[in-house]
Amino acid sequence: MQGKIITISRQCGSGGHSIGSELAKRLDVPFYDKEIIEIAAKESGFHQKFIEEQEEHMNRSLLFNIARHVAYAGRGSYADYQPLQDQLYFTQVKVVKEIAEKGPGVIVGRCADYILRDRKDVLNVFIHADMAFKKKHCMERGQFSEENMEDMIRRRDKLRAEHYRYYTDRKWGDSINYHLCLDSGVFGIEKCVSMVEDACKGMHPVSQ
Amino acid sequence: MQGKIITISRQCGSGGHSIGSELAKRLDVPFYDKEIIEIAAKESGFHQKFIEEQEEHMNRSLLFNIARHVAYAGRGSYADYQPLQDQLYFTQVKVVKEIAEKGPGVIVGRCADYILRDRKDVLNVFIHADMAFKKKHCMERGQFSEENMEDMIRRRDKLRAEHYRYYTDRKWGDSINYHLCLDSGVFGIEKCVSMVEDACKGMHPVSQ
Repeated sequence: MQGKIITISRQCGSGGHSIGSELAKRLDVPFYDKEIIEIAAKESGFHQKFIEEQEEHMNRSLLFNIARHVAYAGRGSYADYQPLQDQLYFTQVKVVKEIAEKGPGVIVGRCADYILRDRKDVLNVFIHADMAFKKKHCMERGQFSEENMEDMIRRRDKLRAEHYRYYTDRKWGDSINYHLCLDSGVFGIEKCVSMVEDACKGMHPVSQ
Repeated sequence: MQGKIITISRQCGSGGHSIGSELAKRLDVPFYDKEIIEIAAKESGFHQKFIEEQEEHMNRSLLFNIARHVAYAGRGSYADYQPLQDQLYFTQVKVVKEIAEKGPGVIVGRCADYILRDRKDVLNVFIHADMAFKKKHCMERGQFSEENMEDMIRRRDKLRAEHYRYYTDRKWGDSINYHLCLDSGVFGIEKCVSMVEDACKGMHPVSQ
């Protein structure tokens, strides 16, 4: 792999973060997940903690934004109005594009597959798994309480799907949006890393 | 790969048939695509040509069936009534299950991923590509006239998606229904064959 950017979209608990992190180590390229929030915080002036919280509750913010859109529709001041959620999104868009300009790297989440859709040097990957695997993975990482883990995983994935739909008008997890989709539940984390690494080598922009 | 069944679902023109055929050769296992129709014809008594034609026009048949369902609803004779399209589908279900019982093999299409969903020795693959690649592939194989090729490809995919939805209640091409999804437009046919072959080796039913 030479000079490629790998975007990893992932279901909650599928191990997409671990796969991306391990892949970046193997390829000796930068890895970006929460790091994007850090950069966005610096560039926007928003506090990092505040951006993280907004990400956690993106759905509520979206609904709130839609309500405001409706409320503002047709008023003179509307053209200048940009909802907070949009400001955060467009800051991250800028950061993701800057990262891609710098050179090869692995980017997790943030609609990066869509943001970088006009580049020819990007491999888009989606990682998913069955619920049993996702619960086990979250348990190992101490995410969520055991009691309501399944609900939390479903909710997190629902938020991600809605966020993606809102900003890209595409369906999150639909195979046609990615070059490679893997079920980490049947392949395991380690094998997924190797498969993505192998895919990088074999990728050629035939007719993109 | 030992004793595995590989199902390949594919967009029209993505090269899924070629990938499956080449893979079966490499693994030295039987390959089933139109061969399933041959077996279904023998088992059902329907003429092979007739089944092929029904497959081509599955959408029209589905609508026709739905209309008949509505017309028959609530009548005493309804319980014994099975629409032609369903008869053909359930014959193919039987054939696909019999094939899987026989041992390893590669099966293209026919909702085989869904039909064999309770088995643990199945690798489900989905192949898709961008329209430019699909048109080129169909052109090389002499499928459809050049003039309306794009329309025909879209229509064929629409029929497949509707057929899949009707019999499985799942979304065709949604990554969560497959263990591995590949964009043959960026990897090419040859590389896809290698990637599926490699996936077979690495598959283990962790938590299915």
